[in-house]
Amino acid sequence: MEIKPYKKDFDHSYSFGAFPTIEMLENRGKYAKEVIISPKLTDRAIIDQACAKAGVPIRESGKIIEKLGDKENVYILGVFEKFECTLSKDRPHIVLVNPGNMGNMGTIIRTAVGMGIKDLAIVRPGADIFDPKTVRASMGALFRINFKYYDDFEDYMKEYPGHHIYTFMLDADERLTPTHKHEEPFSLVFGNESSGLPYKFHDYGTSIIIPQSKEVDSLNITIAASVAMYVFNGYKM
Amino acid sequence: MEIKPYKKDFDHSYSFGAFPTIEMLENRGKYAKEVIISPKLTDRAIIDQACAKAGVPIRESGKIIEKLGDKENVYILGVFEKFECTLSKDRPHIVLVNPGNMGNMGTIIRTAVGMGIKDLAIVRPGADIFDPKTVRASMGALFRINFKYYDDFEDYMKEYPGHHIYTFMLDADERLTPTHKHEEPFSLVFGNESSGLPYKFHDYGTSIIIPQSKEVDSLNITIAASVAMYVFNGYKM
Repeated sequence: MEIKPYKKDFDHSYSFGAFPTIEMLENRGKYAKEVIISPKLTDRAIIDQACAKAGVPIRESGKIIEKLGDKENVYILGVFEKFECTLSKDRPHIVLVNPGNMGNMGTIIRTAVGMGIKDLAIVRPGADIFDPKTVRASMGALFRINFKYYDDFEDYMKEYPGHHIYTFMLDADERLTPTHKHEEPFSLVFGNESSGLPYKFHDYGTSIIIPQSKEVDSLNITIAASVAMYVFNGYKM
Repeated sequence: MEIKPYKKDFDHSYSFGAFPTIEMLENRGKYAKEVIISPKLTDRAIIDQACAKAGVPIRESGKIIEKLGDKENVYILGVFEKFECTLSKDRPHIVLVNPGNMGNMGTIIRTAVGMGIKDLAIVRPGADIFDPKTVRASMGALFRINFKYYDDFEDYMKEYPGHHIYTFMLDADERLTPTHKHEEPFSLVFGNESSGLPYKFHDYGTSIIIPQSKEVDSLNITIAASVAMYVFNGYKM
């Protein structure tokens, strides 16, 4: 196949770099199409082995790597078909409502996996989870989670009636405590980086604010999500 | 004065954008030299007022803003003299050992202020706290903290013998618990983004790991620092 710079409407996407590509091969190998390497790659052993195990062809092409690699140090590019997932009915979820930034989304995915949360719902409009920027920011952790897009938060809620909803917003009913009481399975819901969650999210379960000094405008979304995930689940890892 | 693109050896630096510049004027106004605005700025009221209060001149120059503004939406640029600080002897500290990335350092500063921690030690070699990239990533929170560079961690320790040292590292003696027992005043010590803290930091107090799934390589430094700051101090805000 011809490898062109990523566009959102493609049926495939790319993982840049050794670590994300190996994560893709090991966790979503059945969607892998091929791996392209630079002639500058000196040690092929690990990637050769991962490709052999997944039954995925390797192609050497400095041209493609140069054309697509957005950073100088990229020597490995994985090509994979986009795929769909189903979320778990009984494990915890993260819900991102209108996430705008691919780097933030990738960082949240990487942190969620670190905190033992491996199901992600995204409410549209939302950043593209398959964009190589998201894949890279997640360090390939994207290939270890289930994710699903929803047009509306209420569609999501209807599909998982057993999940207890916790919405993180500045104008909230409760302050996050280090041993916050909560029910399981839970959904931790975060809004857009700039605008947060709309006011109506007060009505969808329990609203929580992460305590913060009045000296800052608000905590960054990736920071807020990380603290919440640690308190709800990560400490058990 | 002539305004040139920032270099590390300058005696002055810049704050880009309205919010960081107002933070600078309000919190470190005595170091402010001037504020430069774009003719495209439509609402001057807030910046005029902040400059008047700090006794700082305003100059309109689209040319300078265009030359220095690294993002399109910058209409305000503050010019300030670099300054030195002394750390508090009795309040909590953050210590960054060899921080490499200005964006991460700025995010940690913003989060620290949000978590009520306003003293920062940096062990060299370390990223430039005055670089406009750090200032911007901190959203101006940099102007609310005390910070000081040290050539060696032991020099820092000698200066604050009353501080209890907690080093965050993967190969640690304790796991961070949500209500982690600790003494005050404390110093939370974090290593470089890529390499972490050298092994010898085991000997400087109590070493702690943030629990994390084996499915990720490690948590991002800004995430790890945020969770630690929340558990040690932020929950009280």
